[in-house]
Amino acid sequence: MPQHTDRGYEQQLSRLRAAVLEMGGLVEDQIAHAVRSLTERDQSLARATIERDDMVNRFDVEVDDLCLKLLALHQPAARDLRLITTALKITTDLERIGDMAAHIAERALELEAEAPVEPKAESMIDLPLMGNLARTMVHRALDAFVREDAELALDVCRSDDAIDKLHGQLFRALLAFMVEDPTTIARTMRLLFVSKNLERVGDHATNIAEMVIFLVKGRSIRHMDTPPREL
Amino acid sequence: MPQHTDRGYEQQLSRLRAAVLEMGGLVEDQIAHAVRSLTERDQSLARATIERDDMVNRFDVEVDDLCLKLLALHQPAARDLRLITTALKITTDLERIGDMAAHIAERALELEAEAPVEPKAESMIDLPLMGNLARTMVHRALDAFVREDAELALDVCRSDDAIDKLHGQLFRALLAFMVEDPTTIARTMRLLFVSKNLERVGDHATNIAEMVIFLVKGRSIRHMDTPPREL
Repeated sequence: MPQHTDRGYEQQLSRLRAAVLEMGGLVEDQIAHAVRSLTERDQSLARATIERDDMVNRFDVEVDDLCLKLLALHQPAARDLRLITTALKITTDLERIGDMAAHIAERALELEAEAPVEPKAESMIDLPLMGNLARTMVHRALDAFVREDAELALDVCRSDDAIDKLHGQLFRALLAFMVEDPTTIARTMRLLFVSKNLERVGDHATNIAEMVIFLVKGRSIRHMDTPPREL
Repeated sequence: MPQHTDRGYEQQLSRLRAAVLEMGGLVEDQIAHAVRSLTERDQSLARATIERDDMVNRFDVEVDDLCLKLLALHQPAARDLRLITTALKITTDLERIGDMAAHIAERALELEAEAPVEPKAESMIDLPLMGNLARTMVHRALDAFVREDAELALDVCRSDDAIDKLHGQLFRALLAFMVEDPTTIARTMRLLFVSKNLERVGDHATNIAEMVIFLVKGRSIRHMDTPPREL
């Protein structure tokens, strides 16, 4: 019989949960720094954010490695097996959220290099708001993962709507702005991409939350058009 | 001892490989149909493509399920374990490639609803070209997966550059077009999104190929800036 209850195994499982949370914390910081580098035109913060993406990537490899070792050495069953396979899938989303942060920081550098025309003050208010929403979603999705809390995960799925709406509003506003003053198209497009990137962070957080629901309930709500009212 | 060599196990492994290939074939068709619905202004094809995304999603759940069963019932070791965990991660990418196809088909419907102004003939040549490149990348990445062929996978990673370049060219051309004639901004943006979606298909195919290299070589080339010359 594989030893499911030995101390080394439990320690490795705890290490896995901790590593996912650490990776999540890093990724949350990356989003915050990326958006701040944009709104505060802070080039050195933007560059630091791009460089730190390497750390996110190293975590990705480390967590995958932990998962493979747990599967190979301990042959976990049932719930633990679902936990480990969920962690394997979650790292992909976290790694891509890290990419989104790096992309935003790259746009910040490009915008800084151009003439400092602000295409509507409102976008500079909405983007930090979207950034905060996105970060909170990532944080709560990972909280739901370590606590195996399906209700919290469902709440995360529901909150994706708010980011999508903000992105839609900003998109229309920026589009109107481009039509009004075509000389700003290139710069305004960059803000649009930032908005899109933040919306995608929300999507990745939703994916993570959906996997947590599958982990806890053994039931997939992926691919439903809207999240169910209750589980 | 877990039975690694019994017939049921081998059959399930073959079934897993076949399911991943089937899912891949479906996703390849979805990309082709989506791009065709756009260039040929075929609304019913666009709608059919959007509806078929459900099938892609069902595959995703089915493959994950197969993987979990294999892990739980047969406790595979070493190479098989890597094959199964790779399949688990691959489905996420295939599912999102399916989403990209559905997004492209949605843009096709929106463009059809608007005045039929073609924003430069060249974009209608480049988009099918990008679509073909993207499909080929997906096809070869999955081929590399079932054959466990790291060289082929590396080749897929290298070919991502071509799609990225086409996207960059198209992006600049469409941007110039918008500046020239701002009344077309909304429509031109949709073509830009299609180009971006195809570029992301290339990224997902690259992710799959990188996972195949890890599967075969036990070595991660993820997060290198450029693919290595040889493995």
